[in-house]
Amino acid sequence: MDIKRYQQKIDSFVKDRNWDKFHSPKNLTMALSGEVGELSDILQWLTEEESKRENLNEKTLCLVKEELADIFIYLIRIADKLDINIEEEVENKIRLNEEKYPIHLSKNNATKYNRR
Amino acid sequence: MDIKRYQQKIDSFVKDRNWDKFHSPKNLTMALSGEVGELSDILQWLTEEESKRENLNEKTLCLVKEELADIFIYLIRIADKLDINIEEEVENKIRLNEEKYPIHLSKNNATKYNRR
Amino acid sequence: MDIKRYQQKIDSFVKDRNWDKFHSPKNLTMALSGEVGELSDILQWLTEEESKRENLNEKTLCLVKEELADIFIYLIRIADKLDINIEEEVENKIRLNEEKYPIHLSKNNATKYNRR
Amino acid sequence: MDIKRYQQKIDSFVKDRNWDKFHSPKNLTMALSGEVGELSDILQWLTEEESKRENLNEKTLCLVKEELADIFIYLIRIADKLDINIEEEVENKIRLNEEKYPIHLSKNNATKYNRR
Repeated sequence: MDIKRYQQKIDSFVKDRNWDKFHSPKNLTMALSGEVGELSDILQWLTEEESKRENLNEKTLCLVKEELADIFIYLIRIADKLDINIEEEVENKIRLNEEKYPIHLSKNNATKYNRR
Repeated sequence: MDIKRYQQKIDSFVKDRNWDKFHSPKNLTMALSGEVGELSDILQWLTEEESKRENLNEKTLCLVKEELADIFIYLIRIADKLDINIEEEVENKIRLNEEKYPIHLSKNNATKYNRR
Repeated sequence: MDIKRYQQKIDSFVKDRNWDKFHSPKNLTMALSGEVGELSDILQWLTEEESKRENLNEKTLCLVKEELADIFIYLIRIADKLDINIEEEVENKIRLNEEKYPIHLSKNNATKYNRR
Repeated sequence: MDIKRYQQKIDSFVKDRNWDKFHSPKNLTMALSGEVGELSDILQWLTEEESKRENLNEKTLCLVKEELADIFIYLIRIADKLDINIEEEVENKIRLNEEKYPIHLSKNNATKYNRR
C-alpha cells in the first residue's frame, strides 16, 4: 500500500474544498475519536462471538468496513500533517512491544506491562 | 507499506502469547478506543496552533508517534480479524467522499453532508 | 446530589490553578474522550461476564470507580461551561427515548431507531 | 438531582424492552464511547472560541445538550450496574485531585501529575 499516495489524494481533496484550516492535528484527533465512536456504536450490543467475521451480517460488515476506512484516512492524515513516518513508527512499536511483553511474562495474560 | 506483513507479525506476536482469545473485533475496538483516548489526552490542552508540527515539543511529538503506531496496529489487526482489505475500503471511501462532498457545496464549509 | 455544588467546587479548583483558559468546551470534550478511553482500556480484555460487579476483582473495581468519577467531573464541567442544565436534559432525553423506542418495536431488539 | 430516581427510570425502561442482557458494564462502556464520539464529532471543526456558549449557534447547542444527556444516562447506568455510588467517588476524586495538583506546582500548568 502506497500510503504517501493516499495522503496526497486526501491532501488534494482537502485543499480543493479549502478545508486545510480545519485540519490541525488537534481537530483531526477529535475527528478520529468521532469515527472510533461510530465503530464502537456498531459493535456495542454484539457479543464477542457475534462480532467475529463468520457471525456478522452483511449490513453490519459494510458499516464496519466504512468505519475502518474513515479511521485509516484520519490516521494517515494526522501522520501527514505531523510529518510522521507511520511505517517507521509501527516498526518501532512492534519491536518495543516485544520487549515490554516478553513471552514468559505475557503468556495467557494480557495485563498491561505497567500494571503487572 | 506491506500491510499484510505487519498483520502477520502482529498475528505471530499474539499467538506466541496465547492472546488470540482476547482479540475479538469487539475487544479490539475497545483497545482502539483506549489508544485514541490517549492521543486525545496528549493534545487536549494544546491550542490548534500548538498541536502543529512546528510547535510541538520533542517529548510530545514522541508520545504522539507512539500513539499513532498503536492506533495503526489495532486498526490493521481489526481488519485482519475481519478479513477486510483495508486498502480497497480506503479507495472506496475516498471515492464516496468525493460524491458526498462536491466542491461547490463544500468549499469553505466542513458541515457533514447529512447536516447540510 | 447537588450538582451545582460540585460544579462550583470544580470551578474553584480550576480558577485556583489558573486553568480556566484550558477549559473550553472543545478541550473538555477531548479530556472526556481521554477518560472514557481509560475506562475502555480497563475493560477491553474482559468478557461481558467478567465485567460484571460480582466478577470484578477489587483492583479493577477501584480503577473503574476512579474513571467514572473523572468522566462525571468532566461531564458536569462541560455542562457548567455551556450553561446547560443537565438534569433538565436528562429528563428530556428519557422522554424522547420512550418515543423513539416504543416497547412493541424494541422488545428484545436494541437496534438504533434510525437503523430499524 | 436524585440520581437513584433516574437510575430506576432507566432500569425500568431497559427491563420493559428486555434489554438488560445487553447492559453489561463492558457493553455500556462501548455505548458511552459512542456517545462521546458523537460529542467530538459535533465540536471537531470548531475553534475553542467557537465552542463556547456565547458563540454556539442554537442548532449546535441542541445537539450538544442531547449528547450530554446521553453520556450522563450511560454513565449513571454503568454506576448502577456496578453498584458504585457515583457521588461518593466524585467527592473522593475531587479530594485526590487537590493532592495530586497542589496549587504551587499546577498554577498555569495543566501537565498531568505523572508527567511533571
